[in-house]
Amino acid sequence: MSADAPFLLACRREKAPFTPIWIMRQAGRYLPQYRAVREKFSFLELCKTPEAAAEVTVQPIDLIGVDAAILFADILLILEPLDLGLSFTPGDGPSLARPIRTPEDVAKMPRPDVRDALSYVGDTIREVRRRLAGRVPLIGFAGAPFTLASYAIEGGGSRNYIETKKFLLSHPEAWSDLMGRLVDVTVDYLTAQVEAGAQALQIFDSWIGHVGPDDYRASVLPHMRDLFGRLPRDVPVIHFGTGTAGLLELMAEGGGDVIGLDWRVRLAEGWARVGHDRAIQGNLDPAILYAPPSVIRAKVKALLSEADGRPGHIVNLGHGVLPDTPVDGVRCLVDTVHELSA
Amino acid sequence: MSADAPFLLACRREKAPFTPIWIMRQAGRYLPQYRAVREKFSFLELCKTPEAAAEVTVQPIDLIGVDAAILFADILLILEPLDLGLSFTPGDGPSLARPIRTPEDVAKMPRPDVRDALSYVGDTIREVRRRLAGRVPLIGFAGAPFTLASYAIEGGGSRNYIETKKFLLSHPEAWSDLMGRLVDVTVDYLTAQVEAGAQALQIFDSWIGHVGPDDYRASVLPHMRDLFGRLPRDVPVIHFGTGTAGLLELMAEGGGDVIGLDWRVRLAEGWARVGHDRAIQGNLDPAILYAPPSVIRAKVKALLSEADGRPGHIVNLGHGVLPDTPVDGVRCLVDTVHELSA
Repeated sequence: MSADAPFLLACRREKAPFTPIWIMRQAGRYLPQYRAVREKFSFLELCKTPEAAAEVTVQPIDLIGVDAAILFADILLILEPLDLGLSFTPGDGPSLARPIRTPEDVAKMPRPDVRDALSYVGDTIREVRRRLAGRVPLIGFAGAPFTLASYAIEGGGSRNYIETKKFLLSHPEAWSDLMGRLVDVTVDYLTAQVEAGAQALQIFDSWIGHVGPDDYRASVLPHMRDLFGRLPRDVPVIHFGTGTAGLLELMAEGGGDVIGLDWRVRLAEGWARVGHDRAIQGNLDPAILYAPPSVIRAKVKALLSEADGRPGHIVNLGHGVLPDTPVDGVRCLVDTVHELSA
Repeated sequence: MSADAPFLLACRREKAPFTPIWIMRQAGRYLPQYRAVREKFSFLELCKTPEAAAEVTVQPIDLIGVDAAILFADILLILEPLDLGLSFTPGDGPSLARPIRTPEDVAKMPRPDVRDALSYVGDTIREVRRRLAGRVPLIGFAGAPFTLASYAIEGGGSRNYIETKKFLLSHPEAWSDLMGRLVDVTVDYLTAQVEAGAQALQIFDSWIGHVGPDDYRASVLPHMRDLFGRLPRDVPVIHFGTGTAGLLELMAEGGGDVIGLDWRVRLAEGWARVGHDRAIQGNLDPAILYAPPSVIRAKVKALLSEADGRPGHIVNLGHGVLPDTPVDGVRCLVDTVHELSA
């Protein structure tokens, strides 16, 4: 894989022949070919079967023509060796049988060797690199400590994150301990991903948009600075969140070569706020993929015009592509970005 | 009720003896006295029984000491005469048996006389005013057209608002027709509320934060301007939404004497962005009410310091108080705001 892949050029804010695009959850249920593989495994089994995980990782490169692959895995895999009782139930999403609810729960958490416990992820990465044969770069990823902590405390998905915020506000020292432990395992995990062949990393702080700026500064930012400061320096890192229109400057302060935006803030405004010394990723509404091609085209045109030809823009949705999205809409998006930005 | 109630002074950006506070869903499940009344009725029955609705409206004035009452009702009541099959199922929330899915569905919507169909709301308002006997002002309210349309199209609550956005993007003329019809009934409904005795109004655009700025400008803003332009001019109007950190300037352009903020943006920044020629309402995280009193106190202090003594700040949460919130936390919040701002 050469360093002049358009995706990597954009990460470094160097001029690319066209604006690169990849799509969060591009290896996912909207693709019939993904569903065919998925049928044979439970979700966790698929994550832990390198041949199959590599197969679905590469599918959107062949089928959709995106400019980067992203490892097929889940941000919660790292919670498994932390002994919280992780399971995925069809339809209901992730669930943790033994959530963190007290400072004592944090103190007695194990300190696992995640490189060993998640060695299957390294195997997947090596297999993906072999299958890609240099066609596009491979992105590794992990959840950000807040988002991981929110699952660990809530015991699954949440609407209001009340248990998480109650913990953060009521037990600041135990919260800091928990975040520090999550940063430690995440640094090990991502370092192992890069050693196995990941050529870029994305930190998913998917639920950080539920936190206000003052709480972010006090209870999240120090841990993000710690995390970004300890990641391998030889690959670009994308810092992504949703609902972050009030947090962008703080996220940039946290770190990342590329800041990921969702559609709730204009790209031009978001980029100016994080600073033009960062690259930017985003920020189309996943809903446009359900609209007619003329609407998708108009949205891409408006987005590229906001980026104003500045090097360092990677097109993506503002959140993952949804399971019932029409494949034709996804293809139309990718083709239009390539055509209009060339 | 005199015009110099602290809440009304703040709405007009006049100096008040202390910073007024009320709390969204203050007449709600967190209060045992509310649950006692609620037990005797289904949700819709309670809304339609003026004596009981007035009783729960007044409860938080007596029990918590807030500075305004807000009519007990639901933003979806106005959808009932639109013949969409509205029902409330315990636990699952609102549901519409006949959602709007096509332009034809919009064209054949009835044009009901909402003053007549919702006359019970006027009865409740008159009864509340009698019971309040001038102690605090009464706020009437309605849902904003986008939020109403999202329920009408999705058929209930939603996570991603895909059907709504698909409709908005794919059928712009029918969308505009739908929004116009919703504005028409909302103007009639709110005018009737003011005539019955509401002394302020709040427009709840609860789910507008899922819409990006460009779609807001094209598909929502014209209807908000139409709505605000046609409301009675003799009472202040609060324009509220959540997740709006990317939309504040556009919301202010839409209208409102007071702009309601959630906690995802700093109050000082939000106020500067909507302009100091508007009053501001907000913006505490409902989660702080679960924290120890020392944390609530620190959060109130920080909030008041952001408002910087500028007249025109009404304290509120950034969203409704949650059902399992400790009553002591709510009382602590109200008392602390009064004490620290006096």
